Amino acid sequence: MDETTPKPTAAHVTRLRFVFGEKRIVGPGRIDLLEGIGDTGSIAAAGRRMGMSYKRAWTLVEELNATFDAPLVEMHRGGAGRGGAELTALGRDVVSRYRAMQAASDRAIAVDLQALLARLAPEPVSPG
Amino acid sequence: MDETTPKPTAAHVTRLRFVFGEKRIVGPGRIDLLEGIGDTGSIAAAGRRMGMSYKRAWTLVEELNATFDAPLVEMHRGGAGRGGAELTALGRDVVSRYRAMQAASDRAIAVDLQALLARLAPEPVSPG
Repeated sequence: MDETTPKPTAAHVTRLRFVFGEKRIVGPGRIDLLEGIGDTGSIAAAGRRMGMSYKRAWTLVEELNATFDAPLVEMHRGGAGRGGAELTALGRDVVSRYRAMQAASDRAIAVDLQALLARLAPEPVSPG
Repeated sequence: MDETTPKPTAAHVTRLRFVFGEKRIVGPGRIDLLEGIGDTGSIAAAGRRMGMSYKRAWTLVEELNATFDAPLVEMHRGGAGRGGAELTALGRDVVSRYRAMQAASDRAIAVDLQALLARLAPEPVSPG
């Protein structure tokens, strides 16, 4: 058997990140977290499915909410316990816009990315 | 005086990163390091001007050289001391291609990026 794994394809190789300032970052991890909050209605659950601590997920939400001129995530504190959370209209817009930007970027660089992929070394199989 | 700094503009906000595998990453920091090696003829000097330790710079060069099917950086060990380093033809191609991809991506997302920038909160002036 060949001791290498297949070379990666263009899918999921590119990561687009916007650094608007210190702690004012919009990148793939934060977008996945926002999307998870929209899906689960919970910061804790969204963090958990990414293997992220509750504290870390909260910190990222606070940073995201302070990045824009309105919050991306709205917390519900009315009920018992930690309560739920949901995306605001701006939060949904940032997520869908980021996904569209990633797709537009991928299209714009597709030919060059193929050229890079063609020169990749085969990746060694990790031991075990 | 207004206690905020100007909102960032589109310039230098976007970071394009390619994750080809574990430790097989091409992103803005590694590209800057390669460019610095091309400029200075030295891994140590290129790392130093980025505030990077010699060990860290070496590790990144080793990872970059293992990412592709040929090295991006060639070391000269002939002389005394640590010797110099230079970019190979592939190294120069990866740097210029990455810069072109960043520019193509920036053009493709320009309208959406302006929409995000328009919704940024003003950044508080850091204390001190």
